[in-house]
Amino acid sequence: MKVKSIAWENGSLVIIDQTQLPQKLKYLHCRNEKQVWDAIRKLKVRGAPAIGVAAAFGLVLGLRRKKFSGRESFLKNLDKISAYLASSRPTAVNLVWALDRLRQRARTADSRSAAVLTELMLKEARAILAEDRASCLRMGENARQLVKRNDRIMTYCNAGLLATAGTGTALAVLYEAKKQGKNIKAYACETRPLLQGARLTAWELRQNGIDVTLVCDNMAASLMRQKKIDKIFVGSDRIAANGDAANKIGSYQLAIAAAYHKIPFYVVAPASTFDLKIKTGAAIPIEERPAEEVSTLWYSRPMTAKGVNIYNPAFDVIPAGLIKAIITDHGILRPPYRINIKKCFRK
Amino acid sequence: MKVKSIAWENGSLVIIDQTQLPQKLKYLHCRNEKQVWDAIRKLKVRGAPAIGVAAAFGLVLGLRRKKFSGRESFLKNLDKISAYLASSRPTAVNLVWALDRLRQRARTADSRSAAVLTELMLKEARAILAEDRASCLRMGENARQLVKRNDRIMTYCNAGLLATAGTGTALAVLYEAKKQGKNIKAYACETRPLLQGARLTAWELRQNGIDVTLVCDNMAASLMRQKKIDKIFVGSDRIAANGDAANKIGSYQLAIAAAYHKIPFYVVAPASTFDLKIKTGAAIPIEERPAEEVSTLWYSRPMTAKGVNIYNPAFDVIPAGLIKAIITDHGILRPPYRINIKKCFRK
Repeated sequence: MKVKSIAWENGSLVIIDQTQLPQKLKYLHCRNEKQVWDAIRKLKVRGAPAIGVAAAFGLVLGLRRKKFSGRESFLKNLDKISAYLASSRPTAVNLVWALDRLRQRARTADSRSAAVLTELMLKEARAILAEDRASCLRMGENARQLVKRNDRIMTYCNAGLLATAGTGTALAVLYEAKKQGKNIKAYACETRPLLQGARLTAWELRQNGIDVTLVCDNMAASLMRQKKIDKIFVGSDRIAANGDAANKIGSYQLAIAAAYHKIPFYVVAPASTFDLKIKTGAAIPIEERPAEEVSTLWYSRPMTAKGVNIYNPAFDVIPAGLIKAIITDHGILRPPYRINIKKCFRK
Repeated sequence: MKVKSIAWENGSLVIIDQTQLPQKLKYLHCRNEKQVWDAIRKLKVRGAPAIGVAAAFGLVLGLRRKKFSGRESFLKNLDKISAYLASSRPTAVNLVWALDRLRQRARTADSRSAAVLTELMLKEARAILAEDRASCLRMGENARQLVKRNDRIMTYCNAGLLATAGTGTALAVLYEAKKQGKNIKAYACETRPLLQGARLTAWELRQNGIDVTLVCDNMAASLMRQKKIDKIFVGSDRIAANGDAANKIGSYQLAIAAAYHKIPFYVVAPASTFDLKIKTGAAIPIEERPAEEVSTLWYSRPMTAKGVNIYNPAFDVIPAGLIKAIITDHGILRPPYRINIKKCFRK
């Protein structure tokens, strides 16, 4: 991979400012939790696993800037900064998962020293980052059997190296196939309104030598009809206990089109994306974002009349029934999901 | 209606330059066939019925600028200018239909005088425009029974007053419902890449007092899932003998999503949109347009990396099986379409 999307360097969280891509490859150095909150909120860092990793380091940055009278005061502040960072975006569960993991680690630690506990938090954040990298590679490997030579693979939004600390979730599958010399072709849906497919996925696939064709989201079914798509891999922001998977708005529509054309539709996500407390997709909170994201075309000139109502949900839910398999870092899950997800996570 | 999209004034074809909407309401005066060709090609005037009307006047403008030695020379030039104008865009059959109607009219006329024949062509073009206006009203009236009070109606691309010389095809249905006090709500899909839904449909519905909410194309299925859409009306650029209907790219995907949610999907088009020489949608020519329409977001700054492949088909085909009914100026057609279309056009 030519670039690293997230790193911890000299006491700063270094991320690519993804709102500047593909025009500029600009690194952003976050030195406090407010900068991290802002980066997540404004999608400078995005992608479910990536915002989990970023939030963990954001928590560390917040703790490092404070003095504590002792363990209790440390834990109180830990919870406070954690709640603050969790408020940046509601849909991806990885965010809360990472923060909870740090909070849990602090509570199970013996030390009464705030300095020691803070260092422990940094260690845990580094562990999350390292595990995310390893998990990406494992997802890619686990999906090997699903990808054939010359496959034409469609993907949606960005579930690549820019969405994780490693090679991605859905795109890890493509990078692994490329490594194995499978000569795949990728189709990236542009992903309105913020064009993560056009700006990010097309950019990173090209950077890493994968042939990619960009289409508008509304062209997917037409391509399927023309038999130009063999399979579809997407990421996810939260997967319920029954396999319903929230992902970028439009994923649901794409899954319906795939089912209509009998094209396999796969979701790729690490264990941290599963939220077993949530029974079905109906209970997943769906973020609504500002109307300007739709009306001003990636913040350029307005393209709709003043006063027009705009509805801008950032996600939707792919019902488990439309998902052929879920590829995780622990292996491939197939229907019936309720049973197989439970089995997998019991281990 | 507050604006007229096409008119013949003082020997010029006057159209709204739709590429400037919604920022500017700018009228364009075409004085020769080249300007008309260019206006059609660059979508300054668009919509299947509207480009038919525009082409008819374009042919008149071309003929008026020439001197003819007699009837034969007139007919030869008529065919030549007609072929030139027909080359502006391939998918909408109304374009060729209107040009053929003028050519036919000239051939059945007795006169040997080129001046008389040219005036006859103007009369015929005016007739096409007047008939298109009347036909829009009839389509609206014919669809009355399909629209209930408080219906939430989704539409796609622009099939309104900007797409015709009258009140539109699909949008004529909404304007008629509004006239009847039915308190409908409209949902406009933005229609990438050129955003006819966002720029044109949202603009004209709002101008004419209909409550309209804009969404990205990929949000349609999510709205349907939330039971926010009661029915869908779209226009068409060419309808084959079996009822397959070509329309703006993305219509097919929308029809699949509608079928999945059991939401009625209606096509609204005048008789001139039917092409009975074409048996199925597979034989309808699909225009491919420049990559820049996708990559530069309505001609603003580039949003994908240089060298990324782009596929940009302008249309796709809704299979007859996904269409609940076709509303025409001659009444409502229902399946089996092959039989009912034949019956309707035998009259």
